[in-house]
Amino acid sequence: MTVHVVAYDTENPADTRELSRALSQFDVSRVRRIALLVKTEGNAEVNDFSRELAMLATGQALTSWGGAQVLGRTTFLISTGCEGAMTPFGYLFADVDDNLEPAQAKALAIGCARSRSLKSAEIGTTAHADIAAEAVRDAMKDAGVNVKDVALVIVKTPIMSLAYAEGAGGARITSAHSKAVGALGAGLALGEVERSKIVQDAIDRDLTLFARRAMVFSGSELDCVEVLLLANKAGAAGNLYVQTGSFSDVLDAHAIRQSLREAGCEIDAQGCVADPTRVVAMLVKGGVSPDGRLRGYRTTITSSHIDMDKHVRATLSGVVGSILGSCRIFISANTVHQAPAGAGLCACIVRRSR
Amino acid sequence: MTVHVVAYDTENPADTRELSRALSQFDVSRVRRIALLVKTEGNAEVNDFSRELAMLATGQALTSWGGAQVLGRTTFLISTGCEGAMTPFGYLFADVDDNLEPAQAKALAIGCARSRSLKSAEIGTTAHADIAAEAVRDAMKDAGVNVKDVALVIVKTPIMSLAYAEGAGGARITSAHSKAVGALGAGLALGEVERSKIVQDAIDRDLTLFARRAMVFSGSELDCVEVLLLANKAGAAGNLYVQTGSFSDVLDAHAIRQSLREAGCEIDAQGCVADPTRVVAMLVKGGVSPDGRLRGYRTTITSSHIDMDKHVRATLSGVVGSILGSCRIFISANTVHQAPAGAGLCACIVRRSR
Amino acid sequence: MTVHVVAYDTENPADTRELSRALSQFDVSRVRRIALLVKTEGNAEVNDFSRELAMLATGQALTSWGGAQVLGRTTFLISTGCEGAMTPFGYLFADVDDNLEPAQAKALAIGCARSRSLKSAEIGTTAHADIAAEAVRDAMKDAGVNVKDVALVIVKTPIMSLAYAEGAGGARITSAHSKAVGALGAGLALGEVERSKIVQDAIDRDLTLFARRAMVFSGSELDCVEVLLLANKAGAAGNLYVQTGSFSDVLDAHAIRQSLREAGCEIDAQGCVADPTRVVAMLVKGGVSPDGRLRGYRTTITSSHIDMDKHVRATLSGVVGSILGSCRIFISANTVHQAPAGAGLCACIVRRSR
Amino acid sequence: MTVHVVAYDTENPADTRELSRALSQFDVSRVRRIALLVKTEGNAEVNDFSRELAMLATGQALTSWGGAQVLGRTTFLISTGCEGAMTPFGYLFADVDDNLEPAQAKALAIGCARSRSLKSAEIGTTAHADIAAEAVRDAMKDAGVNVKDVALVIVKTPIMSLAYAEGAGGARITSAHSKAVGALGAGLALGEVERSKIVQDAIDRDLTLFARRAMVFSGSELDCVEVLLLANKAGAAGNLYVQTGSFSDVLDAHAIRQSLREAGCEIDAQGCVADPTRVVAMLVKGGVSPDGRLRGYRTTITSSHIDMDKHVRATLSGVVGSILGSCRIFISANTVHQAPAGAGLCACIVRRSR
Repeated sequence: MTVHVVAYDTENPADTRELSRALSQFDVSRVRRIALLVKTEGNAEVNDFSRELAMLATGQALTSWGGAQVLGRTTFLISTGCEGAMTPFGYLFADVDDNLEPAQAKALAIGCARSRSLKSAEIGTTAHADIAAEAVRDAMKDAGVNVKDVALVIVKTPIMSLAYAEGAGGARITSAHSKAVGALGAGLALGEVERSKIVQDAIDRDLTLFARRAMVFSGSELDCVEVLLLANKAGAAGNLYVQTGSFSDVLDAHAIRQSLREAGCEIDAQGCVADPTRVVAMLVKGGVSPDGRLRGYRTTITSSHIDMDKHVRATLSGVVGSILGSCRIFISANTVHQAPAGAGLCACIVRRSR
Repeated sequence: MTVHVVAYDTENPADTRELSRALSQFDVSRVRRIALLVKTEGNAEVNDFSRELAMLATGQALTSWGGAQVLGRTTFLISTGCEGAMTPFGYLFADVDDNLEPAQAKALAIGCARSRSLKSAEIGTTAHADIAAEAVRDAMKDAGVNVKDVALVIVKTPIMSLAYAEGAGGARITSAHSKAVGALGAGLALGEVERSKIVQDAIDRDLTLFARRAMVFSGSELDCVEVLLLANKAGAAGNLYVQTGSFSDVLDAHAIRQSLREAGCEIDAQGCVADPTRVVAMLVKGGVSPDGRLRGYRTTITSSHIDMDKHVRATLSGVVGSILGSCRIFISANTVHQAPAGAGLCACIVRRSR
Repeated sequence: MTVHVVAYDTENPADTRELSRALSQFDVSRVRRIALLVKTEGNAEVNDFSRELAMLATGQALTSWGGAQVLGRTTFLISTGCEGAMTPFGYLFADVDDNLEPAQAKALAIGCARSRSLKSAEIGTTAHADIAAEAVRDAMKDAGVNVKDVALVIVKTPIMSLAYAEGAGGARITSAHSKAVGALGAGLALGEVERSKIVQDAIDRDLTLFARRAMVFSGSELDCVEVLLLANKAGAAGNLYVQTGSFSDVLDAHAIRQSLREAGCEIDAQGCVADPTRVVAMLVKGGVSPDGRLRGYRTTITSSHIDMDKHVRATLSGVVGSILGSCRIFISANTVHQAPAGAGLCACIVRRSR
Repeated sequence: MTVHVVAYDTENPADTRELSRALSQFDVSRVRRIALLVKTEGNAEVNDFSRELAMLATGQALTSWGGAQVLGRTTFLISTGCEGAMTPFGYLFADVDDNLEPAQAKALAIGCARSRSLKSAEIGTTAHADIAAEAVRDAMKDAGVNVKDVALVIVKTPIMSLAYAEGAGGARITSAHSKAVGALGAGLALGEVERSKIVQDAIDRDLTLFARRAMVFSGSELDCVEVLLLANKAGAAGNLYVQTGSFSDVLDAHAIRQSLREAGCEIDAQGCVADPTRVVAMLVKGGVSPDGRLRGYRTTITSSHIDMDKHVRATLSGVVGSILGSCRIFISANTVHQAPAGAGLCACIVRRSR
């Protein structure tokens, strides 16, 4: 099995021309898993429906390529918000049975999983965290890896909107709360958060609890937990490798560079990646301290009419973009229970040099 | 004469406690010129009056310190927009007759000038550019420097709002147009733009025309052109030095570092300034290509519900903030006729090492 | 032929359940024309793609009901912006050959037309206005009515976005400019604007030129002019009647009431429609004077961070909503060349009392 | 004593020219109380400092007119948000000892009061409500009226911002929570809410509790509760009268008209006030049901990127503005504990006809 990663551009959230071109190079009968990590330029305000549009259009593109049944093997993560130096684009992950020789070293592998549907009363509770943990374990099985091999789990977790809460008789669960629960669940599965610490009052509050290899997103369109797992696996084919790193705050370019170095990239005298073509994917998730302070200075990140996530994404687009010289970086915000307060994490997938 | 530069924080746009503390160290009778470069956290949307509030409060603080007549020796530049990693703060420049020995090398000097009031029919025209050029020349005289010594001219230029245009019978002149005119005028005075090229149709259009040492701002509160000039002058006292640099786009961290190196700062292996305490002020102004593309990628900088200047400021706050490890950077956007399309400029004031 | 009008609610822009239910009552083989006037809750900021989503979902619903060929007989007008007391909803117009006896009086009839594709060089020019006029005449023919019968023409007119302009070598044409051109064309066809007055410099400037029975919208998705025409026609079946009215500004509730009275509605002592169930559709388009003044007072309608159209829509939702006691009103803004500066127009479709 | 009410326009939040002209007609030595109800066009987003600017400028204008000591007799209520058909303006209330004969009927009287400073631990608690109640009682004493005479109490109540909460060791108290507490306190003083019902869990939750004659605002600039009370008092001079009314939702124009009728205004056949010059002030506060539904319809009022208060203000500006034919209406939003859920209240001050 070989995991291929292709970055593709979009002209609008419904544009799937480059995606279709990328898919066309694969034989659908040999594709075990597809995953899509997409950034749309939807404005990320309330009543932005660009994710729904992208989902509809992307589903049609996949169906055109591989028939409706390919959707069952596909994991979608569509995220809004391309502020600053970010371009709207997607990463296509294809796990292909191409009979290649295993690589000498460990190579990139992916695993996907989806939990059962959550009951409305479960959403936002510790049961939700347990279900997320189970989904992460399922994704490890799907990838055929153990917990040490895991580089990153990308978790999509359901929220309970007002409309749904009213129908279901549950309480409204915000996106932030649901992400917090999902992160604790991922941390549990990865051995980074103790089960005994995951109590209702700790959720979104006890910021000393955090996973170290999880990026969590919420989705109003689903009622289950979905996981895409990235790992380095012995016996996998291909020459890709994934490296996870952490950084202490959004200005911590040093840690981003360190992570790239550990992935095998050379950093030149200017602080930039010497051979950027080797970086096939870069995922970054950053946060800010709840008081909005950065290096001791007051900022407006948590106190402005612009959502804090937009400040974080735009700032990181400068920091990471100036290291990679690129706008094709998947940057998101909110790292509650995914990093210490105000800190963040990144994952880079690089092509090994010969 | 010695120019002192003090950075001070604010808790809100009307907070002048740190400014007053900074002023109190100077003997008003020996202060030749005061200049204030201030960033407020006002939201920079239409009907944000934080500049007016800061102006009122700052004027009161100056008057408390030096009497009303000190306002006549003071140049204000109050700017809104602290997106991303920027902190709301100010730089106080004080040009003091302290009888110190001249420095051995050239040292920082400032000059200030104010043009006559523009007639409403002049605003936005080539006459406006000529008046701006004259004000820059006056600021050179005020500083006692020639054109080669000039590192940066900061120009504030009037706009004509709808209300004023109606009263005065003139056409409405936008902030962007007025800045463009001011920049051409500054370029003319600095020998960087030829007078023959400054024609009405070129304003805000012919982007091949640009000054190289000007940052231009607009103000609805004034009807004249104001200039604050930074130069390195033989015979000046003090150990400050100002260095101007240019960069090719908002991700061009290399050029920012190069400018800091040329100012005498050491850049460490991580790409950061080795001794950030030596950087007493950092001014950055960046832009984006009119088509919103960056390194060939589509961005939403010029096509989103967030003003393009906010994208640029937040992105640069990451790029420059990660080099300096600081949030106290005066970052602004729009570089029309101040740099090539999509490019920008910076000025760093550093303390010479002994 | 009988025109049926059904109002249907939506839970989100992709929700077509009520639309499908409404369609199911019609025999597709007897439906001559379908038209949809839809308001989505998309936030109406840049990079709101709710129209595209609604278009995709609505197209699927129509295809499910009547096969792909029904799309050729359908006119779509999907509009964003449900500020204030407006609810997201749609009006379905179905022109059905149901062999009913003609009504004794004139009854509601609709006509649809689509122009040829405009060349990029034509968009925004007087040629564009002529093409719009021709499309309005075609819609009259389609409805089988003459100019006196026409109550309202709803015109959708192409814009030229930056991206398209670059590819096509044309100048960017804004939504406002394109609507202005479309309105002049409609006024020409309706005999309300003289052809000789339609010159390039008059477009979006000479506000003394205006149609009296046109509401114009722009669409980036089309390269032609589309028209939906509402008329009262002798020989048509059904008991619906359409009445057009005009009002002098957004607070002119009197004129709205007058229009409802002329349509045959009774206004009670409270100023409300006595029998609101008889009003099957209400369309309102309002504007504001370019200087933002209303009844002599300064407002922020044209000078705020909120788009002027949102101010207008929300204000009118109060004025008209309090007369009808309803949130299902199709309100839009911008009446350039569709009414005198600052004024507006409305059209109400009422069920005749027996 | 005679209460005079003067409406004055402003060109910007710092513009006090018309206010100063209005003040100049009064002899400061005879003025017992001044109150200012002001609407600025500040954009009402986070980091809008227009209230602070208006406060500073208004204070200077009052001081210029009556000396610094007049500030101690002045109550300020400066509110942002002039969406839709509202104009930025102010109402000046002056309670003047002019030795006039008492009016035959009751006439408008005002009372002002200010509580002691609240401790940080008190803000947001039932103690805060008791303090608000006490301040309302003090305002009754100041006006010399009893509870039956009271038409309206306007309450300004402190919030606890994040910054303050951190310093004071208290929990952050939002504006909504503080208004809820203030409203319960006012209701207590007016005999409209039972003390036993005012428990911590009821605040901002038990919407069956509400005052009927209170409009509550919050202010981050104060640490006490301030009250301006409007009443009709036997023995007062002048020909003004204040009438309070309630309405069931933002479209309930009927109730607004009813209130104007009860105040003695004639409503014409068009549903408008026959003699609008008799209405010297109109205050309206409206809300929306927590689920955002209006007359059974889904709206975006509580689910959009635009703050719900802006939807409410703009909508009401249409409803009330079309009745009065004016943009000078003081409209605000949020009626938690000031009316039933989704309902609102109004107060009109009219000049009695002879």
